[in-house]
Amino acid sequence: MISNNSKFSLVQVRGAWTRQTEQQRPAEGKLSEAKIYESESEHGVSWTVVSPVVFTYRVIQCQNLLDPSNDTLLWGHLGNEEPTGAMSNFTPVKRFVVIDEAVNQLYGSQVAQYFEAREVVHKILPLPTTEENKCLELVTKILEDIHEFGLDRRSEPIIAIGGGVCLDVVGLAASLYRRRTPYIRVPTTLLSYVDASVGAKTGVNFAGGKNKLGSYVPPVATFLDRSFFQTLPRRQISNGMAEMLKMALMKHRSLFELLEAEGRKLLHSKLQSCSEQDDSAAASTRIAIETMLEELAPNLWEDDLDRLVDFGHLISPELEMTVLPALLHGEAVTIDMSFMVYVAQQRGLLTADEKHRIVRCMLALELPVWHQDCTLALVQKSLSERLRHSAGSLRMPLPTGLGCAEIFHDMIEDSILCQVYQKWTDELGNK
Amino acid sequence: MISNNSKFSLVQVRGAWTRQTEQQRPAEGKLSEAKIYESESEHGVSWTVVSPVVFTYRVIQCQNLLDPSNDTLLWGHLGNEEPTGAMSNFTPVKRFVVIDEAVNQLYGSQVAQYFEAREVVHKILPLPTTEENKCLELVTKILEDIHEFGLDRRSEPIIAIGGGVCLDVVGLAASLYRRRTPYIRVPTTLLSYVDASVGAKTGVNFAGGKNKLGSYVPPVATFLDRSFFQTLPRRQISNGMAEMLKMALMKHRSLFELLEAEGRKLLHSKLQSCSEQDDSAAASTRIAIETMLEELAPNLWEDDLDRLVDFGHLISPELEMTVLPALLHGEAVTIDMSFMVYVAQQRGLLTADEKHRIVRCMLALELPVWHQDCTLALVQKSLSERLRHSAGSLRMPLPTGLGCAEIFHDMIEDSILCQVYQKWTDELGNK
Ligand SMILES: NC(=O)c1ccc[n+]([C@@H]2O[C@H](COP(=O)([O-])OP(=O)(O)OC[C@H]3O[C@@H](n4cnc5c(N)ncnc54)[C@H](O)[C@@H]3O)[C@@H](O)[C@H]2O)c1
Ligand SMILES: NC(=O)c1ccc[n+]([C@@H]2O[C@H](COP(=O)([O-])OP(=O)(O)OC[C@H]3O[C@@H](n4cnc5c(N)ncnc54)[C@H](O)[C@@H]3O)[C@@H](O)[C@H]2O)c1
Repeated sequence: MISNNSKFSLVQVRGAWTRQTEQQRPAEGKLSEAKIYESESEHGVSWTVVSPVVFTYRVIQCQNLLDPSNDTLLWGHLGNEEPTGAMSNFTPVKRFVVIDEAVNQLYGSQVAQYFEAREVVHKILPLPTTEENKCLELVTKILEDIHEFGLDRRSEPIIAIGGGVCLDVVGLAASLYRRRTPYIRVPTTLLSYVDASVGAKTGVNFAGGKNKLGSYVPPVATFLDRSFFQTLPRRQISNGMAEMLKMALMKHRSLFELLEAEGRKLLHSKLQSCSEQDDSAAASTRIAIETMLEELAPNLWEDDLDRLVDFGHLISPELEMTVLPALLHGEAVTIDMSFMVYVAQQRGLLTADEKHRIVRCMLALELPVWHQDCTLALVQKSLSERLRHSAGSLRMPLPTGLGCAEIFHDMIEDSILCQVYQKWTDELGNK
Repeated sequence: MISNNSKFSLVQVRGAWTRQTEQQRPAEGKLSEAKIYESESEHGVSWTVVSPVVFTYRVIQCQNLLDPSNDTLLWGHLGNEEPTGAMSNFTPVKRFVVIDEAVNQLYGSQVAQYFEAREVVHKILPLPTTEENKCLELVTKILEDIHEFGLDRRSEPIIAIGGGVCLDVVGLAASLYRRRTPYIRVPTTLLSYVDASVGAKTGVNFAGGKNKLGSYVPPVATFLDRSFFQTLPRRQISNGMAEMLKMALMKHRSLFELLEAEGRKLLHSKLQSCSEQDDSAAASTRIAIETMLEELAPNLWEDDLDRLVDFGHLISPELEMTVLPALLHGEAVTIDMSFMVYVAQQRGLLTADEKHRIVRCMLALELPVWHQDCTLALVQKSLSERLRHSAGSLRMPLPTGLGCAEIFHDMIEDSILCQVYQKWTDELGNK
């Protein structure tokens, strides 16, 4: 891949970076992880730069986030660091907050009280961050308001409070402003709590395509507080549990068993903790976050195309956009997973009993396992689109048991696809 | 900074990433560079993710880039790799090209001929990529056209041909499309050849501020061909030499001496090679690129705020936007450098003779060394803005001799600033 003429390390000596070959005596100074390869021919010189950029972010689970005596919302992103910059100069602390309009109805006064009690100069911007509005115009609106408010790019993170749409849109705005302004995610839906909050992705829809524009810039911190779920409609809880089930099926058998045994109860209690002895809500969300972090942390920019977290995400983007707003994200994902479970059984990766247990669990969580608009044609189109954008290989995660999975690279033969589709429709078409 | 409860490495075993403490027996599998730190208290759990993302890009200097027999424009970004994906399936090769309107007037037919001769399915989009138009609307226009054309995100890089404005705008569009689509830079001005082409920055102006929005996503490759300079106005050559002079002053004495001795000749020949024996054009641009790469590669996302390449860029952004379009980028940079040379001499970092040599060199390159709109008030405002956005320290690069420099952190005392400003104006105000 790299021409092997010369390889240079980079050493910083009194402020200036200098190149150094491996043969040279190492100069004293800071050594960079970056490398420069140089190759020369009669046609000219060429350089290859290989440079790692380190991203650091915190995911903090806590209680009473909006209680003015809780420091987290203001300073949690610093961990054990002391506040610096503006703080130490006795200039007032400033925060810019974007909040989902519906969330603002419910929690807006608490948010305002928090910042007032802490004497923070703040602006709260409520926005209708729905899937239909998830577009570049909303990003521009946020940017204009941020610019007018005035922020210190280094020490005053932008705060986003809402569901996945709000977090995605604010994340994109923050990643663009001055080429990157720190931001904080406060997820208020279960879906964004277990998924959007943990990774680096931001995005908006564009030209009818889901998340067609975006960036990979993680927040400085995500603050997780399950008490927001109390006001969520039951359907939104089911929606989020779909992503938890995804992680369970891909890599955590005991999470699957927990959802199988306690799923309905969790749904009913909206994942609030019932007692110290039986805290299946805390346990299950924690496993969901940890397994998600494991998969996302080593692949922050999705350079590796083989991703277990893509389970349920091969057919669902097309389905979700086709029937918008009929299906929620997690619902479309479950329909996709249900179909793939049938594919896995057809391949002998799952037994009939395992398949039944999975489908039964989905139904217990009040999630759809089939949809009339998820036609054979849509499945075929989605899979060939996937093939086109995954460097010539399908990269299809499939369960190979309960809580374990593998990535399969071969395209599904068309006759088999028809057969699986027929069986899936026969068995689940009326559930 | 990081709580020290548990530190996990990540190992990939049969497709799934798993956490592993240092005490655990290492599982067999791929080890990630990413780490997860977990800490637990009575208030909850918190995780800190530290994840390096590796960026790789090529900078290739070549001749006859638009000659259909030259593979570089189509395949140079792959280095010695074989073309994959689309190529191997015998589907046609596709390229989307954005070109500066003025450059299209001069080179458009050659570009079209190149792709026709190579039987590439292509779309060429000429745009008025001027500083006044450098805004988000232009990015949206490009995105719409890319989307309509249809690209394989993995194997069909977007190509930008033009000056710094064109490269910055296309870079931003590419970095947003599907969260990152590879792009190629072909700089046609000297300024963008030695500067914009080498790093990761993209950007547009916003709300009257220069490059207020953007991203840090390097191109997959930059192709450098000096023959484009033949059609540049002389003033544009001077403009680019300002950035070469910057690198010379900061870290390369012999480049300074070369510019001092040969600057006028280089300007006159528009940096075309005169003869094999005396190729100061090739030598000087090569040093400029190499010194720039050295400084940018270890700091691709500008996490380190101490940057020698910021010399000439403390006062100039404000000045450039104030007088737009009176001063070109490199001209504003030279006025800033000229002032800073006076600051350096006042501090005893430069002798009077060194100062004279530098100013003489600037004038020989037909660059302005003073400007009436670069008022004391503007200087003061720029420096305090800088202070505000650099985590409480000025971080001012200053020459400490010819070809060496240091970064100074203390604010310039106001009385000293007045004094230096007065001297600068007295000595250079009529040049
Ligand atoms: N960036 C990522 O990694 C990532 C991951 C998964 C999903 N997503 C994105 O997230 C979006 C879906 O997220 P979502 O399901 O949170 O949708 P959403 O943001 O649309 O929120 C769902 C609804 O719940 C309401 N709501 C939010 N919090 C509430 C609360 N506490 N009480 C009552 N109502 C509340 C909202 O107003 C909204 O009507 C999709 O656009 C998807 O692409 C992103
Ligand atoms: N991304 C970075 O790291 C970086 C670095 C430096 C500068 N920049 C940006 O680059 C911009 C300045 O770049 P620039 O000086 O190239 O300006 P530019 O892109 O405006 O080009 C200058 C002029 O030259 C014309 N032109 C271009 N190539 C020509 C050719 N071969 N023959 C004849 N005319 C030609 C253009 O039409 C334009 O009118 C600024 O916006 C600056 O912010 C970015």
